[in-house]
Amino acid sequence: MLPFERVAIIGLGLIGSSIARAVRQYMPTVKLTAHDASAEVRARVEELDFVDDVTDTAGAAVVDADLVILCVPVGAMGAVAAAIAADLPAEAIVSDVGSSKAGVVEALAAALPGRTIIPAHPVAGTENSGPDAGFASLFQGRWCIVTPPEDAAAGPVARVRAFWEGLGANVETMDPRHHDLVLAVTSHLPHLIAYTIVGTASDMETVTRSEVIKFSAGGFRDFTRIAASDPTMWRDVFLANKDAVLEMLQRFTEDLTALQRAIRWGDGDALFDLFTRTRAVRRSIIAEGQDDERPDFGRAHE
Amino acid sequence: MLPFERVAIIGLGLIGSSIARAVRQYMPTVKLTAHDASAEVRARVEELDFVDDVTDTAGAAVVDADLVILCVPVGAMGAVAAAIAADLPAEAIVSDVGSSKAGVVEALAAALPGRTIIPAHPVAGTENSGPDAGFASLFQGRWCIVTPPEDAAAGPVARVRAFWEGLGANVETMDPRHHDLVLAVTSHLPHLIAYTIVGTASDMETVTRSEVIKFSAGGFRDFTRIAASDPTMWRDVFLANKDAVLEMLQRFTEDLTALQRAIRWGDGDALFDLFTRTRAVRRSIIAEGQDDERPDFGRAHE
Repeated sequence: MLPFERVAIIGLGLIGSSIARAVRQYMPTVKLTAHDASAEVRARVEELDFVDDVTDTAGAAVVDADLVILCVPVGAMGAVAAAIAADLPAEAIVSDVGSSKAGVVEALAAALPGRTIIPAHPVAGTENSGPDAGFASLFQGRWCIVTPPEDAAAGPVARVRAFWEGLGANVETMDPRHHDLVLAVTSHLPHLIAYTIVGTASDMETVTRSEVIKFSAGGFRDFTRIAASDPTMWRDVFLANKDAVLEMLQRFTEDLTALQRAIRWGDGDALFDLFTRTRAVRRSIIAEGQDDERPDFGRAHE
Repeated sequence: MLPFERVAIIGLGLIGSSIARAVRQYMPTVKLTAHDASAEVRARVEELDFVDDVTDTAGAAVVDADLVILCVPVGAMGAVAAAIAADLPAEAIVSDVGSSKAGVVEALAAALPGRTIIPAHPVAGTENSGPDAGFASLFQGRWCIVTPPEDAAAGPVARVRAFWEGLGANVETMDPRHHDLVLAVTSHLPHLIAYTIVGTASDMETVTRSEVIKFSAGGFRDFTRIAASDPTMWRDVFLANKDAVLEMLQRFTEDLTALQRAIRWGDGDALFDLFTRTRAVRRSIIAEGQDDERPDFGRAHE
């Protein structure tokens, strides 16, 4: 028994197109409709042929759906929800894939009063964007966090969980505000730091851009992958999860200042203690299957 | 014609053991002697069998060498150089693989007056340490920066360059002080930031350690690889390259503060502009062959 039979996807970037491909692969009998605001993306998806029907409006995509997934930047969620409101079947469940949740829960509730809304966030992605970047196995073994509103009924929550499990994800349920705190640490702060350091390195007068690129294997290149992520998506995340991001940033800055002081005063023991502690975190991530243990991320050396 | 016939390696961690394995593979007629301060490491290297002779003292390893490479933390360079001084043949060239160079050039010159010293820094590595972590292809297609003292003769510089080219590296010559500036941006600052953020994330009261690990695929895990690097090596790098690191840290903090202000005041355009600019840097790194273009570092998803 499939949790849903007719799935509509609004937004066909990396995540939306990966969901579509995964549904095709793991739930081949599901009818897939889809819409993207960009005519160019719609034309490309017709060519790639991983949905049954690409519609010219968001409303036309959802008119017969039992699950609608909004895969657009979090700043656009409210407007897209408003655009489908008139065509949304009464029994349909609306979900999304946004990287911040408290604001999305509010925006969807305001645009779709009385409807069944079960937000979710698959914690998976790559540095590439657009419908060509997606692939069916993106969610395999990754976590998807479902953040139902307080008054959500058990049935729809169970169906959304079953949907993500069907795509290969591990599912966890979380309060939207707690989700935003957890992701501020594990995702939003790392992205912000990566964007900053790549910007800082590009603006040196004494070191050329070409030197930065040439010698990036010393560590810098690991930051550039994250800092190549979609600019619109990430602008919206930082604006939507402002309070949690600013709180994490404050803590990070305090810790960095302490380390700066240790370097200035030659306190090698403080440095050594921190560097030993952080090594253990890496080991746990590999033990939990959340990263590849091959050294250097399995990068080819020949 | 090989640039050297008898190579001594002092220190058999990731880099030293990779050099030994690469010499075995690409210059099989070279006689390899080696020493490590740890008896445990020496015993393991005997088992792994990638050098001709493992000696109980550093002096015994260099006694017949025409190239000696010091592969120890930069804080230990002076002491190791002093330990080999009495046994070092007059015509031998001494090199090293330290990640900061101005201090190493000084320490080696002080410990080995009148000897031929040609420092170098292969910009390559993984998050793993020790003699088991090394592999012969580590330097293939990576850069090695040679930083000769001002009065170095052309012949020894050319031989050290030829040695690294023989192991598959691209070689660039650089002034030691400029090297330290370039690496402060491309390697030291990224490591410092990664260590800090992993520490910050481990110290939350509102988010558990297990949540940080579980949801690390959102970006955090990319920092943990770097933050798993060898603690002794990195403590020494920050202390040795203090001035350049503190200067980069200051610039980074200014840039981060500007971004923090943009988030606080909801300046989406400033965020979008930076995030678009940093994307271009990633493309250049891939175009220059300094990283793998497969999305998500080719991490397996099934």
